[in-house]
Amino acid sequence: MLVVQKYGGTSVGDVERIKNVARRSLQARQQGHDVVVVVSAMSGETNRLLGLTKQVHPAPTEREQDVVVATGEQVSVGLVALAIQAAGGKARSLLGHQVKILTDSSFSRARIKSIDADRIFAALKAGEIAVVAGFQGQDEHGNVTTLGRGGSDTTAVALAAALKAQACEIYTDVDGVYTTDPNVCPAARKLERVSYEEMLELASSGAKVLQIRSVEFAMKYRVPTWVKSSFSDDPGTLVCEEDRAMEDIVVSGIAYDRNEAKIALRRVPDVPGVAAKIFTPLAEAGIVVDMIVQNVSQEGHTDLTFTVGRTDLAKATAVVKEAVKPLGVRKVDTDDKVAKVSVVGVGMRNHSGVAAKMFQVLSAEGINVLMISTSEIKISCVIQEKYVELAVRALHTAFGLDVPATQAAEA
Amino acid sequence: MLVVQKYGGTSVGDVERIKNVARRSLQARQQGHDVVVVVSAMSGETNRLLGLTKQVHPAPTEREQDVVVATGEQVSVGLVALAIQAAGGKARSLLGHQVKILTDSSFSRARIKSIDADRIFAALKAGEIAVVAGFQGQDEHGNVTTLGRGGSDTTAVALAAALKAQACEIYTDVDGVYTTDPNVCPAARKLERVSYEEMLELASSGAKVLQIRSVEFAMKYRVPTWVKSSFSDDPGTLVCEEDRAMEDIVVSGIAYDRNEAKIALRRVPDVPGVAAKIFTPLAEAGIVVDMIVQNVSQEGHTDLTFTVGRTDLAKATAVVKEAVKPLGVRKVDTDDKVAKVSVVGVGMRNHSGVAAKMFQVLSAEGINVLMISTSEIKISCVIQEKYVELAVRALHTAFGLDVPATQAAEA
Repeated sequence: MLVVQKYGGTSVGDVERIKNVARRSLQARQQGHDVVVVVSAMSGETNRLLGLTKQVHPAPTEREQDVVVATGEQVSVGLVALAIQAAGGKARSLLGHQVKILTDSSFSRARIKSIDADRIFAALKAGEIAVVAGFQGQDEHGNVTTLGRGGSDTTAVALAAALKAQACEIYTDVDGVYTTDPNVCPAARKLERVSYEEMLELASSGAKVLQIRSVEFAMKYRVPTWVKSSFSDDPGTLVCEEDRAMEDIVVSGIAYDRNEAKIALRRVPDVPGVAAKIFTPLAEAGIVVDMIVQNVSQEGHTDLTFTVGRTDLAKATAVVKEAVKPLGVRKVDTDDKVAKVSVVGVGMRNHSGVAAKMFQVLSAEGINVLMISTSEIKISCVIQEKYVELAVRALHTAFGLDVPATQAAEA
Repeated sequence: MLVVQKYGGTSVGDVERIKNVARRSLQARQQGHDVVVVVSAMSGETNRLLGLTKQVHPAPTEREQDVVVATGEQVSVGLVALAIQAAGGKARSLLGHQVKILTDSSFSRARIKSIDADRIFAALKAGEIAVVAGFQGQDEHGNVTTLGRGGSDTTAVALAAALKAQACEIYTDVDGVYTTDPNVCPAARKLERVSYEEMLELASSGAKVLQIRSVEFAMKYRVPTWVKSSFSDDPGTLVCEEDRAMEDIVVSGIAYDRNEAKIALRRVPDVPGVAAKIFTPLAEAGIVVDMIVQNVSQEGHTDLTFTVGRTDLAKATAVVKEAVKPLGVRKVDTDDKVAKVSVVGVGMRNHSGVAAKMFQVLSAEGINVLMISTSEIKISCVIQEKYVELAVRALHTAFGLDVPATQAAEA
């Protein structure tokens, strides 16, 4: 069996933890598996390096920033390979340009185009554990590129797909995917399995355990992906294809996202092309718009409300004010004290009434729903941020996700 | 004009110094030159990274150590390129594998085989300052290699040769090559010019201002090389081809080396092949032997004395004891309290009596000469270490190298 193991920044955070990674990967090797290890930079290192670039340049160019930041993973692969060797194993480090992981030239957020698996297979054939630098690649001109935050997850899943690995194991500091954030809801329960689609919706809705693009890769190439803790022997959560048993569960998880801000435009002329006049400049400014709600037109005018990431609010407001000037819009209201709560589950496809139940639960707690958006397997509501913990706990209970009493007693 | 500037670890030691490097290189660019900058790791960084590798592996394998250590220069090139951009210039960082600098596969002490100058010329043609990582290269299998301590000097001179640069400027924390170490001899004088051959002998004899291999490269490809301070505007010292004026100066400099240890074998059978029996195993153990002295044979036996680097003494003694067992050698004496003092000058070729004068000067100070070795332009004596400063100062005065009284008053 060929297995790709990915260890995040906290899992290689110091020398002792690096030795732990060596032990774990050697264990899999000794069980007879071919093992590819993908590692992130030691925790804190990426921020330290970004800080250095900011000290020499107020707005660092992304090509050079990538050159500096990519060293974090390079140090990690060398150290992990050495730790495996020190533990009596055979190992070889491989960098993005050595593998090679070809990306586009979007520095700091590059996308993987292809992976040349030959050098990895050569290492495996020699009985070595291949230790591959996460997060980094090389574009067609030979420039160093990085994949953006959480990019090592994507490296791992993309490698698993390219190598046709039987499994991809993502080791992190939590022991799996939970029904919701245990910090907010003590009754949260670890999921044994979750479908790619659900994981994607959970990740898009604020659950931070896996990077969204890595889930997209896993789904596209059908890579069975385990989320596990590098500090325990818990089997973790398997992210995999949907099956019949999953469909019986209406809601699998509750996610929330505080990184939300609302922009409301009052009395926008309701004529064709007006939405494009507002959202095109936002897109050009690189601002991602999440939900968009437009009211029914009254007297030729309508209200238009949408959400953006909270850190983008100031920039977005400026762009919007400029864009609506010629439209005679009277008012641009903003609110950065909102949050999004989502219920996710593939079972929704076959069960009706989930949305109604969600609204009832929120209403019973006195929580006003400001905006709503739905997908086939998700319902999201924007609410005032101060209610977010309350909403998560109430929904978790209402949709039957709480740990059963007996299980809670054991834990 | 095309100029290669190399900045050492102290010259890029912190953010302010990196900005200073940016200013200096931009100055040369604004004077109309094509500029290639070679940088080392920030001071202390290489040792920090080596320390990390030692924490995970007691004897780190050199391939992986090179992967880790090469990140030091990678961070530096990114930061220097950003600093040049922040100062309004155009710059592009280039790593060993991007340039590309092809080396053999001797990890941690690789030798440059070839340099592909195309990417550098492309950057220069685009009006950019090319910022190249020193110390690192890539072997034919795509592995990361490093050139060993001081390797960035070699990168700079090799690049200057490959690019047919008009000059190579080595920026360091001293403002040139001195007649001897000013810390030992306050009367030391900065040389305006020194020949490649002299520089090579000075470097081999303990002067640390330039790495030996970089001088070999400069000599082989006749690269005019300046040694300058990055903290002053002093013109520095030019290392160049010997000319008539140089030949008139009998002695140009006095060097010393404390990294010496002496091994003496008493009553070695004086038969053919015996030296090979001793020095072959030393070479196989990677121990460099410096001087070798053999006495006239008496009663079929001789005494054999040689020097090794002080850090190699324990290892060398063990190898020698094993080697001389079958020869019936009675005694292996070692002494790690010795040092080497050398006088260097191309003028020696045409002037006799330099050695005699050296012995007289040392004798007049009551310093016993333990071993002697000579080359065409150098005489070296091994003496007791405690006399080394006294010997340097006495020789400096005797060979007329002291700062003239008027010059000393100005300084």
